[in-house]
Amino acid sequence: MNRVDIQKTRQKAIAALRAFFQKEGFLEVETPIMVNYPGMEPNLDPVKVVVQQEGEPSEKFLITSPEYGMKKLLAEGLEKIWQLNSVFRDREEKSPFHNLEFKMLEYYQLGINYH
Amino acid sequence: MNRVDIQKTRQKAIAALRAFFQKEGFLEVETPIMVNYPGMEPNLDPVKVVVQQEGEPSEKFLITSPEYGMKKLLAEGLEKIWQLNSVFRDREEKSPFHNLEFKMLEYYQLGINYH
Repeated sequence: MNRVDIQKTRQKAIAALRAFFQKEGFLEVETPIMVNYPGMEPNLDPVKVVVQQEGEPSEKFLITSPEYGMKKLLAEGLEKIWQLNSVFRDREEKSPFHNLEFKMLEYYQLGINYH
Repeated sequence: MNRVDIQKTRQKAIAALRAFFQKEGFLEVETPIMVNYPGMEPNLDPVKVVVQQEGEPSEKFLITSPEYGMKKLLAEGLEKIWQLNSVFRDREEKSPFHNLEFKMLEYYQLGINYH
């Protein structure tokens, strides 16, 4: 597949995902990519960045998953949410199946279990 | 507005944008956020990151706009494209109207002018 076909196929997949979650009553959400506190998973390395505002440097991180931002929204009262967002993981191996930047689908629903 | 209302309002705005561009025959696209070569605008500071793969450090940048990635897609043959993506600009001033990370709407159409 060339890049044009990849873009077209990707949009078909995303449209199907969006239709599914909409039918199931999930709200699509957006949460920040560059944050003060990344995930706490011991086996993942967040990408660290140093930014400056008005001469003050501050350390930030790119999210390894949207989990923390989405759980804040659950705490604010949303009950069924989903997101397809860009995430970043440092020190991943080099292979045709790994990229430091990739898209992650994440969804949450209050009050359900696996059964 | 609280965070819940912000998320709901944001989704209404995005759905309206998506419907508009779809009606006009534009393909929604996705291009990378972390790149080897950022924009060349002399008045913008890209956020620099250093990542590692298999012990090799490399310097990357977060996009200041999706322009370069989208123009590559025009060169590949797509003629009407749009994207709403996260962009990053270092050394922005601190104000209620500035954030180092924000969403940018960008669209391209071959062969038209302003008239």
